[in-house]
Amino acid sequence: MTSTTGPPGSSVNRQWRLAARPHGLPVASNWEYRTEPVPEPGDGEFLVHILYISLDPAMRGWMNEGRSYVPPVGLGEVMRAGGLGLVVASAHPEFKAGEHVVGTFGVQDYAVSDGRGVIRVSDESVPLVQYLSVLGMPGMTAYFGLLEIGHPAAGETVVVSAAAGAVGQVAGQIARIKGCRVVGIAGGAEKCRFIVDELGFDASVDYKNEDVRAALREHCPDRVDVYFDNVGGEILDIVLTRLARHARIVLCGSISQYNNQGPARGPSNYMTLLVDRARMEGFVVFDYAKRYAEAAREMAGWIADGSLKSVEHVVTGLEQFPETLLKLYSGENFGKLILSVGDEVG
Amino acid sequence: MTSTTGPPGSSVNRQWRLAARPHGLPVASNWEYRTEPVPEPGDGEFLVHILYISLDPAMRGWMNEGRSYVPPVGLGEVMRAGGLGLVVASAHPEFKAGEHVVGTFGVQDYAVSDGRGVIRVSDESVPLVQYLSVLGMPGMTAYFGLLEIGHPAAGETVVVSAAAGAVGQVAGQIARIKGCRVVGIAGGAEKCRFIVDELGFDASVDYKNEDVRAALREHCPDRVDVYFDNVGGEILDIVLTRLARHARIVLCGSISQYNNQGPARGPSNYMTLLVDRARMEGFVVFDYAKRYAEAAREMAGWIADGSLKSVEHVVTGLEQFPETLLKLYSGENFGKLILSVGDEVG
Repeated sequence: MTSTTGPPGSSVNRQWRLAARPHGLPVASNWEYRTEPVPEPGDGEFLVHILYISLDPAMRGWMNEGRSYVPPVGLGEVMRAGGLGLVVASAHPEFKAGEHVVGTFGVQDYAVSDGRGVIRVSDESVPLVQYLSVLGMPGMTAYFGLLEIGHPAAGETVVVSAAAGAVGQVAGQIARIKGCRVVGIAGGAEKCRFIVDELGFDASVDYKNEDVRAALREHCPDRVDVYFDNVGGEILDIVLTRLARHARIVLCGSISQYNNQGPARGPSNYMTLLVDRARMEGFVVFDYAKRYAEAAREMAGWIADGSLKSVEHVVTGLEQFPETLLKLYSGENFGKLILSVGDEVG
Repeated sequence: MTSTTGPPGSSVNRQWRLAARPHGLPVASNWEYRTEPVPEPGDGEFLVHILYISLDPAMRGWMNEGRSYVPPVGLGEVMRAGGLGLVVASAHPEFKAGEHVVGTFGVQDYAVSDGRGVIRVSDESVPLVQYLSVLGMPGMTAYFGLLEIGHPAAGETVVVSAAAGAVGQVAGQIARIKGCRVVGIAGGAEKCRFIVDELGFDASVDYKNEDVRAALREHCPDRVDVYFDNVGGEILDIVLTRLARHARIVLCGSISQYNNQGPARGPSNYMTLLVDRARMEGFVVFDYAKRYAEAAREMAGWIADGSLKSVEHVVTGLEQFPETLLKLYSGENFGKLILSVGDEVG
């Protein structure tokens, strides 16, 4: 990659734009790196200097054409991404320079916003990256998906896949807080040790090195009441054979399938939903937007009393975007993956 | 098949037993035809002379080993089946000779019962075969599946597959009675004409001769709120692409997959459940046993006022069992498939 990194504090806005739709994993030719002048906010707008960019599995889906819960990113457009930044200039009545804000600012240094969908950071004592993690979309996704779709009851067994990921770590901890037995599925001994020793899961399953079927049989003696699924594929099929009666599968993602070039792998064992009188249900976190503040308050309380932890995996440098995004699909990230882009300019 | 049919009124009990577990469609060598003496009821038991045997898609599943909602039929055992018969001898305090009863009597002429799971025919003015159809398990399955899992609301669009089958015809008519727009998927022009002209469906899709995707787009302009699925396979995958927001898929069966030799085809498009905030849920009708009488009363009312019709496809002769069962999987039956076995003896 040739990079024309703008000097710190310069008037250059570095951007990653979608150049072509990927087949399978995104490759260099899918991206266009471009520098533009920093835009100026118009009336009713403000300028955000982006500090942290959220890298999420769902971004792969946004690169595809076709109907989904949000429109695809257009070819030639700045890649869509959530981010946290500092308001550096404002002609907007409600947002002032010097405030930290969270919104969908894209993979770039600067964004102009009219305030729609933008949230002000309410507590500057919280590490800023947590606003993209446990207090941001991943945390909201875990909170509403687990509680509103999974309906876990104390004493039930909850299984979470991608359990060391941004959403999985929070979902599992909330299940523990609600009094459930929590089993996390993650890749590698380090992540498995982490979710048990640091996050308080009852057990872990290392899908890269263990027989998942046998491990679930061992760790879920009363079968699985709630499965919070971030991965789809073979693991979903295995969990389907271990459901308890009236089990709920929360469809949050299917990261194992996002880079498939053919059709996704459907769950062959879905008819166990009939045998076990169980359900599989999807949700989109945006539907709960009016309740984000309520969820953030409750989760901030759990963070304050030590019952909820969050781990962020921060990579530095806007130039690193294409390679860093791939960590999500190889499972290399450990906790919420964030690109730090603003610390270069203070 | 060589048959030693017992003479009418004889003391011979003809039986079809499971000789070997099938791979794919059941073949002759999976069955053993046997004649035995008519058993005698012991204390607290009664003897049923079976008149009608219910042939149901689920029977194929009962022939397999492995965990399901009921144990498999054991090798060498009389094949499990629902049926309607006449009590001809009784040493049971509650069931008397001369009463018609419905129960799981097996594929044979005579069965001894202790009364567990047996229901007395309450209204002899109703055609007896309806007790194996709209007022029997298929009707109960349609009623509770549609209403308790599908939750159809007036004005919503309900799609039913295998719509001319025993369960589908009832599910579709109940949806119509509840004020829904009802679209049935069935195989062949005759069935499609029947469900629209005779049963009052709003539209039909002939999956054997039409482009199902295009037809659903045409007939479900507001997409699909409830899909009552009896077939699984490709049709399920197509309907998944046409769901309305908060749609409910009622998993009742997957007849297209029952005779697969490999794993079932999982629904590749299941992640539309996420996009559409939809759910897919299974149920087992036995769970609603305490409410059968309530459902039968309501459906009998609909039959009486002409809003609910039922069609039975009756084949005569116990010897015809193996060939007749296959009609379910080739889609040859038209309405509830029933084997008439008792009329030979009056």
